[in-house]
Amino acid sequence: MPNPTAAILVIGDEILSGRTREGNAYLLAGEFTRAGIDLREIRVIPDDHDSIVAAVNALRGAYDHLFTSGGIGPTHDDITADAVAAAFGVPIGVREDARALMAAHYEKRGVEFNAARQRMARIPEGATLIDNPVSIAPGFTIGNVHVMAGVPIVFQAMVASVLPRLTGGQPLLSQALRVMRPEGEVAEPLAAIAEAHPGVTVGSYPFLQDGAYGTNLVVRGPVAAEVDAAMAAIAAAFPGRTE
Amino acid sequence: MPNPTAAILVIGDEILSGRTREGNAYLLAGEFTRAGIDLREIRVIPDDHDSIVAAVNALRGAYDHLFTSGGIGPTHDDITADAVAAAFGVPIGVREDARALMAAHYEKRGVEFNAARQRMARIPEGATLIDNPVSIAPGFTIGNVHVMAGVPIVFQAMVASVLPRLTGGQPLLSQALRVMRPEGEVAEPLAAIAEAHPGVTVGSYPFLQDGAYGTNLVVRGPVAAEVDAAMAAIAAAFPGRTE
Repeated sequence: MPNPTAAILVIGDEILSGRTREGNAYLLAGEFTRAGIDLREIRVIPDDHDSIVAAVNALRGAYDHLFTSGGIGPTHDDITADAVAAAFGVPIGVREDARALMAAHYEKRGVEFNAARQRMARIPEGATLIDNPVSIAPGFTIGNVHVMAGVPIVFQAMVASVLPRLTGGQPLLSQALRVMRPEGEVAEPLAAIAEAHPGVTVGSYPFLQDGAYGTNLVVRGPVAAEVDAAMAAIAAAFPGRTE
Repeated sequence: MPNPTAAILVIGDEILSGRTREGNAYLLAGEFTRAGIDLREIRVIPDDHDSIVAAVNALRGAYDHLFTSGGIGPTHDDITADAVAAAFGVPIGVREDARALMAAHYEKRGVEFNAARQRMARIPEGATLIDNPVSIAPGFTIGNVHVMAGVPIVFQAMVASVLPRLTGGQPLLSQALRVMRPEGEVAEPLAAIAEAHPGVTVGSYPFLQDGAYGTNLVVRGPVAAEVDAAMAAIAAAFPGRTE
């Protein structure tokens, strides 16, 4: 059986203006090669409704899979979800499971779940959510189109969530812990935990918030008990260090 | 008058496999912004004849300018020139002026101008050559399509040759000197020469050949006498140091 084919659609004026150097497509290209998926095309287009609709329809028709990066954040120019819904001719609205996940996340952090953030719970009808252990607001899969965030660490986390589904691997469960310590401090204990728990993968995603460095620690694996055990070890290693 | 629009087409399996991180489009995106050209789309496609023909025709029809990167070298998979000729429906063959430039260059360096290298003199009928002061084998412009090499320092030199033509700037003359010294050694004298010759721009393009570092020094400007004067100063500063 030949390898499945794929395209990547990067949505973002900041790439076309030369302000930002695109890196998500480069990362995903390497992941595809390791996963046996043939990447046939990358396109970068502006944050423009008609451009997104046209490119999504052209690329989802031409290849087995289309992955998009960018345009699903809280701001007015984040129009990817609406444009993908239009490309498929389906309605879009706030999805209850996505909204509930995000509400719980923001409440725990004491951050207002305002109207802008609630926009990120708008999901086209019939889509499946893509897990985002880093910042919770999910991506989604509709048909053969996988819609992911453009922020590199979130993109990377979503790729880790969605790729195993496509390559016939077992579905992965995930748990995350947010610790207010820089990645350089968590690296050593984390490596020891990863080694002691070979049935899971352990990822770390650094962030900077209000001038303080923190790291999201994410455990992924097919077996719930193994994910739980690794996460318990992580929680024990970083006691009282979450926000 | 609105800004002219443009697209970039990157041709290369090595980008799609994730082996190489694309950088030419990023560089050109920044140049476009400074030049007042609106970049509307970037596409990356494989070294495949039909894919190149289809993308060239789609993009040259949709935008004022199309810039391509890659696939004009000496190897069997360098098929961009033939595909662009096919896209325009014109014949392609060895062009005498391009062949003569390259023959003189290789003769001076004592390098065989073999059949593979002669392929790089194949230019679609009706095209204008794009000056390549770094490695001589030219790019070309046909209609609104500008075909450039993928090797970053050559791409960069070709961009410097072609952009002023598009933005209504004066056509630039260029002269180059190849010195077998690393860029770090030529930088200081070069900066002094550049400062003393404000009517020209002085560029340096490092290379590595047979284990030795060298630098191509390129002077560009609209006035022949000023280009000559700056190049004379460069030749005096690096006596007997070309190959």
